Amino acid sequence: MSESIQAGLAQPPIEIARLEAFISRTLVSVGIPTDDATQVAKLMAESDAYGGDAHGIFRLQQYVSQIENGAINARPKIRVINERASTALLDGDKALGHLVMKHAAELAIEKARQTGVGWVGTQHSNHAGPAHLYARMAMQQDMIGLYFCVGNANLLPPWGGTEVLLSTNPIAIAVPGLRHPSIVLDMATTNTALGKIRLKAQRNEPIPEGWMIDRQGQPLTDPKRASEGFLVPVGGPKGYGLALMFGLLAGTLNGAAFGRDVVNYTKDAKTPSNTGQAIVALDIRAFSDVQVFKQKVDDVWEMMKSSPTLPGFDEVRLPGERSGKLYEERIAHGVPLGAELRKVLDELADRLKIQRLN
Amino acid sequence: MSESIQAGLAQPPIEIARLEAFISRTLVSVGIPTDDATQVAKLMAESDAYGGDAHGIFRLQQYVSQIENGAINARPKIRVINERASTALLDGDKALGHLVMKHAAELAIEKARQTGVGWVGTQHSNHAGPAHLYARMAMQQDMIGLYFCVGNANLLPPWGGTEVLLSTNPIAIAVPGLRHPSIVLDMATTNTALGKIRLKAQRNEPIPEGWMIDRQGQPLTDPKRASEGFLVPVGGPKGYGLALMFGLLAGTLNGAAFGRDVVNYTKDAKTPSNTGQAIVALDIRAFSDVQVFKQKVDDVWEMMKSSPTLPGFDEVRLPGERSGKLYEERIAHGVPLGAELRKVLDELADRLKIQRLN
Repeated sequence: MSESIQAGLAQPPIEIARLEAFISRTLVSVGIPTDDATQVAKLMAESDAYGGDAHGIFRLQQYVSQIENGAINARPKIRVINERASTALLDGDKALGHLVMKHAAELAIEKARQTGVGWVGTQHSNHAGPAHLYARMAMQQDMIGLYFCVGNANLLPPWGGTEVLLSTNPIAIAVPGLRHPSIVLDMATTNTALGKIRLKAQRNEPIPEGWMIDRQGQPLTDPKRASEGFLVPVGGPKGYGLALMFGLLAGTLNGAAFGRDVVNYTKDAKTPSNTGQAIVALDIRAFSDVQVFKQKVDDVWEMMKSSPTLPGFDEVRLPGERSGKLYEERIAHGVPLGAELRKVLDELADRLKIQRLN
Repeated sequence: MSESIQAGLAQPPIEIARLEAFISRTLVSVGIPTDDATQVAKLMAESDAYGGDAHGIFRLQQYVSQIENGAINARPKIRVINERASTALLDGDKALGHLVMKHAAELAIEKARQTGVGWVGTQHSNHAGPAHLYARMAMQQDMIGLYFCVGNANLLPPWGGTEVLLSTNPIAIAVPGLRHPSIVLDMATTNTALGKIRLKAQRNEPIPEGWMIDRQGQPLTDPKRASEGFLVPVGGPKGYGLALMFGLLAGTLNGAAFGRDVVNYTKDAKTPSNTGQAIVALDIRAFSDVQVFKQKVDDVWEMMKSSPTLPGFDEVRLPGERSGKLYEERIAHGVPLGAELRKVLDELADRLKIQRLN
């Protein structure tokens, strides 16, 4: 019996370098050039390090399936198809989304360095992992990063509607601090993620009110009925509005899929997703001395942290605080992977005739 | 007895031109140059036309008080203090916020025309009316407009906290359509506005669950206790995150007030507010043929409109649809003003020795 199916036994965490190496050899084995595979592996492992467990190595099997079925192009030519001094539109040529978005973020940063701000959109891209990764790329260059995208599955009807025409279109904004951690928001436009609802359903626990509504518009709390319900957008019509507007910005404007054109790649590995994304890099130097600004961000951090709390809260948290702590812990000690995921990855390795994750 | 205090009697709506003329002569009477007064009056009346009843002429008395008390500078020199090809930081010199933001939007549009995108921030600005006005300025030039600002009163604690350190920092995004109306989102980051809660309290009606929490973190529904509670951000920690990030972008980055520095001008007409705002103009031409894009926005409109509805909804609405209809109606037939507001405006006119609103 392989160690991967010892379900219930605690598994030792996997070092980041091992995660990267495994992702890389998997991608190379299905035709991705080594350099590209290395870059994608680094970003996917980084996602796991930040605790985005559903956006890192968890997605590897799906990407492999898309590569094998042609929805992802292993040998893409990513190219700029429309360019101005501060903007660009990239055709991702169905590349792995991480490659397209890394390219987009680097271009946005370069443009921001020249002109103060860079806005780069993508079309014919693919799922690129968690939103914050790309906003952070700008932040690491003393810029503010903003990222929007059209999510890869429609889960949300317009407010008052019953047809799932919208994804939970996430938004990320990253702002650097000086001594305190950076402040990084990465949020979907729904009150909760589908993954959390699936977990409640698996455990047969009631779904908290506010997470889902049924086809009558009533709160859906019975985990057995989860598949009948819809996610609830943040603030009702407001979250619908955010999902719609960021969809127009990241999808429609870029000539990418939006609405009924969105392809759920977890169910369809053959049809190219034509994913659209947008990254904005805003150069802090265009507004302020960088050190002065970062000090002020620290002041905001301290102001929030030192403010009094409601009963039941030990402290006020800043956006990205939890994932930042997790990152440090996982960079030092590795990423815990569940037995079920280990099993999937081992089976994938065996099928592709590569060395298992070790 | 003047007609203005015939409370309870329906008042005829006021033509937009008359609103503008009254606002203009009021501002001129307290020292605002005629050209500036005309510009501000046009924007304030436009706000009323769109149904932003708490952001138009309703604010006139407060602006007058700030001008008389020095928090608003009647003879400002608005100037660019930091500029790059695609960005600028404006020092509003304590001008009426409408003047600062109109200047900022025009500069952002010009920069977008040159480079694809323009991002202009403001400091030492003031309340500028509803967010969508400035996003629409970009939209009217075949651009997408985005606007963020630090609101002028802290009403929101950080999630889990009890000190009101944040405003409901609104965000507006405006996207033009072709035959269908434009899609314009203008939202605060809380589930409801303070004004709606005050209305419930006045009427002694229960406050719907989800609008407020009390100092124990429990839902507050008793209208008599409204003053003890806090607004609830959209999606809980997510709305807090949005208010915080947009505050950092519109306030901290621009050297404007944020957090404990925010001045509530409705209570303090003497202290300059140092309001911060940001406007982004994104040139559609940098990404797409304009007509093609607008046609796609129409398609999105139709897709949402034609989708099936939940019980209790006669149709799916698009962001800005209601205010767009109201605008057409009010441009044609005028703006209804309540007797109480008429009375305030008449008293203001009498005190300033100018002709009443007529």
